[in-house]
Amino acid sequence: MQRKGKAAKNAAAVLANVNSLIKDKALSLIADSLESNEEEILKANEIDLKHLEQSEGYSKAFHDRLMLTPERIKGMADGLREIVDLADPVGEVTKMWRRPNGLQIGQVRVPLGVVAIVYEARPNVTVDAAGLALKSGNAVVLRGSSEAINSNKALVKVIRTSLEEAALPADAAVLIESTERSVVQELMKANDYIDVLIPRGGPSLIRAVIENSTVPVIQTGAGNCHTYVDCQADLKMAEAIAVNAKVQRPGVCNAMETLLVHEDIAAAFLPNVITALVKEGVEVRGCTETQKYHTAVKPASEEDWATEYLDLVLAVKVVKNLEEAIKHINKFGTKHSEAIVTDNYHTAIYFVDNIDAAAVYVNASTRFTDGAEFGLGAELGISTQKIHARGPMGLEALTTQKYIVYGEGQIRQ
Amino acid sequence: MQRKGKAAKNAAAVLANVNSLIKDKALSLIADSLESNEEEILKANEIDLKHLEQSEGYSKAFHDRLMLTPERIKGMADGLREIVDLADPVGEVTKMWRRPNGLQIGQVRVPLGVVAIVYEARPNVTVDAAGLALKSGNAVVLRGSSEAINSNKALVKVIRTSLEEAALPADAAVLIESTERSVVQELMKANDYIDVLIPRGGPSLIRAVIENSTVPVIQTGAGNCHTYVDCQADLKMAEAIAVNAKVQRPGVCNAMETLLVHEDIAAAFLPNVITALVKEGVEVRGCTETQKYHTAVKPASEEDWATEYLDLVLAVKVVKNLEEAIKHINKFGTKHSEAIVTDNYHTAIYFVDNIDAAAVYVNASTRFTDGAEFGLGAELGISTQKIHARGPMGLEALTTQKYIVYGEGQIRQ
Repeated sequence: MQRKGKAAKNAAAVLANVNSLIKDKALSLIADSLESNEEEILKANEIDLKHLEQSEGYSKAFHDRLMLTPERIKGMADGLREIVDLADPVGEVTKMWRRPNGLQIGQVRVPLGVVAIVYEARPNVTVDAAGLALKSGNAVVLRGSSEAINSNKALVKVIRTSLEEAALPADAAVLIESTERSVVQELMKANDYIDVLIPRGGPSLIRAVIENSTVPVIQTGAGNCHTYVDCQADLKMAEAIAVNAKVQRPGVCNAMETLLVHEDIAAAFLPNVITALVKEGVEVRGCTETQKYHTAVKPASEEDWATEYLDLVLAVKVVKNLEEAIKHINKFGTKHSEAIVTDNYHTAIYFVDNIDAAAVYVNASTRFTDGAEFGLGAELGISTQKIHARGPMGLEALTTQKYIVYGEGQIRQ
Repeated sequence: MQRKGKAAKNAAAVLANVNSLIKDKALSLIADSLESNEEEILKANEIDLKHLEQSEGYSKAFHDRLMLTPERIKGMADGLREIVDLADPVGEVTKMWRRPNGLQIGQVRVPLGVVAIVYEARPNVTVDAAGLALKSGNAVVLRGSSEAINSNKALVKVIRTSLEEAALPADAAVLIESTERSVVQELMKANDYIDVLIPRGGPSLIRAVIENSTVPVIQTGAGNCHTYVDCQADLKMAEAIAVNAKVQRPGVCNAMETLLVHEDIAAAFLPNVITALVKEGVEVRGCTETQKYHTAVKPASEEDWATEYLDLVLAVKVVKNLEEAIKHINKFGTKHSEAIVTDNYHTAIYFVDNIDAAAVYVNASTRFTDGAEFGLGAELGISTQKIHARGPMGLEALTTQKYIVYGEGQIRQ
């Protein structure tokens, strides 16, 4: 591990000052090489899939996440080609000013250095993370799940070979091949080699990293997202947004988990929206008030307000007013994505100002919290912490700034 | 502690949406009130000073840092008045754009929430931190050194009373009065109440916080700063910069600790600069080569390159070229402030690009790394980490951003 960390650190120093043309060339080479090595990658993936089929951890959903196909390999390659088209954040002087003594002081965007990522059994993350890190001038240390180890080895081999072809250090992308848990412990303490650690995966992994890491962490977290329908709202719009936020892809972090409804429009809104949700296969769990409006509603317990179902289940609560909605969201929400549907200007402004979350929506589905949907290009995850990066993490989140100071001999008085 | 943390969290929710006029009024009230309560504050400070005089930790420098005087109280009050004059960072929409589907997506600056600071026996930090936190809409949890407890109590009493007079929650500034070490342990684990923890003080405190904190930390670190004098340099300018960086205030983190000199100008530069430094009372420790140029030079050991003297001591090394200088700095430096003196355009650019530090200087003294000198106003410390904030931390470093998304019913396809 230490040897690999050191190698990545050295590669990062080279990568920091490589210009975009060379980084883009490497990204294109990797993309092409993924496609031309399709057979070898699929063979490695098959070994992982066979192991999974024989293991206790098998589930259809897990199998689907782990599985690669020619289309999925093409998808990863195309993802890299999209990164080529994004602007290089490195070298951007975000501000520059002149002081009374003539000093010119500016801030320039530079890579973080070495970014480590610990992630679940999704081989596409290996390629996405390597691509984003490369474009932003960082070396990446990849520690994928043991279930994907053969797929990851095959993918990283392609990446490293392409890096060398582009005359870049292969160690700009390093795979930790040991699947021992102790390796993650080591990563968390490797302050000399790793500048930031991004854990992706279940809450227990993320909690363990936050509790034990001495390396700075960017937390990508759970999404217990809400939509609040105000008493002054276009109910057709509200219904379309609520159904979309719940059912368009229920298994992801920006899907709605609780619907809050102002009591004044509960009677006009709830019967229709619940019927529409039930039609889409959603199980609705509601407060006592909600239960009055539809026979399909099961009773919700206190626990439901705090649950991220990631499934076709929805909690529904009738609230007295905007204040109660905001209080509920700030209490049970995970500071991910929160929406209001309203026609009232003042209500919209007040909601946006008072909700503490990575993304606050007026009259739109929370499902848009996503790097591509926001127009940032690819993303490495969605940060739910407040420091450094918040919301979808694109290329900029993988940079820091340094002050540059140009003088003509100034000394301090 | 938990009770106080909760109180601060509640105050933070109020403060987040208070407009600048009210925050500025509170800052002015605190400033005036510090001056009108001068007698009470000095009395409390005297108790601390007496305790110190009777303790083993006594030193003249410590006594001086702890001591308050009418002028110093006026200085603290004036510091707050300067914060009034700074622009409020909260509410600034730093970017906003429209997506093809019509969604308007922006990023707005918002307070972090609750900022905790653990600091040394400097009562002025109590007032500076409270002032910066208030202006940026954050609640602050203050844990000063036990030696300053009476001074801090008196200061925080004034701050809290003034907050209430301005109709703001007193709990926007909370002093942890217990001087038990276990309180710091508690602060480090208080993720429910504290959004960011800033340790100020010696390396052992900072290391302990980095190793144990589950709350995100902003590291304010040591400064082993260098000045490199290139073979093409104005040697008069180089001498002025080197002397200034070393002697203008040797006890602070942006003072120079090692001078690197290109071998081609060593003979022309070193005798003069060493004479000038010695005249200012500096002890010079040099490499074998340096020792040839002045009889006052003592031999430097490997340890000297890694030492932050914070005193009138300087390490000097002759290097073969720019590459060796950069390698030395990136190996021994603490990523704080690094300078080059050169007349050569290419050398300047190369140095700036390849030095990994919070601030990189061309032809100026490293002593300028400071919030006020950079034009940021007051500062809460100088971050030497890469994530979130790097360099002098002013008001912006105490904010995060949230995405705001304005729609007209958009749903995801």
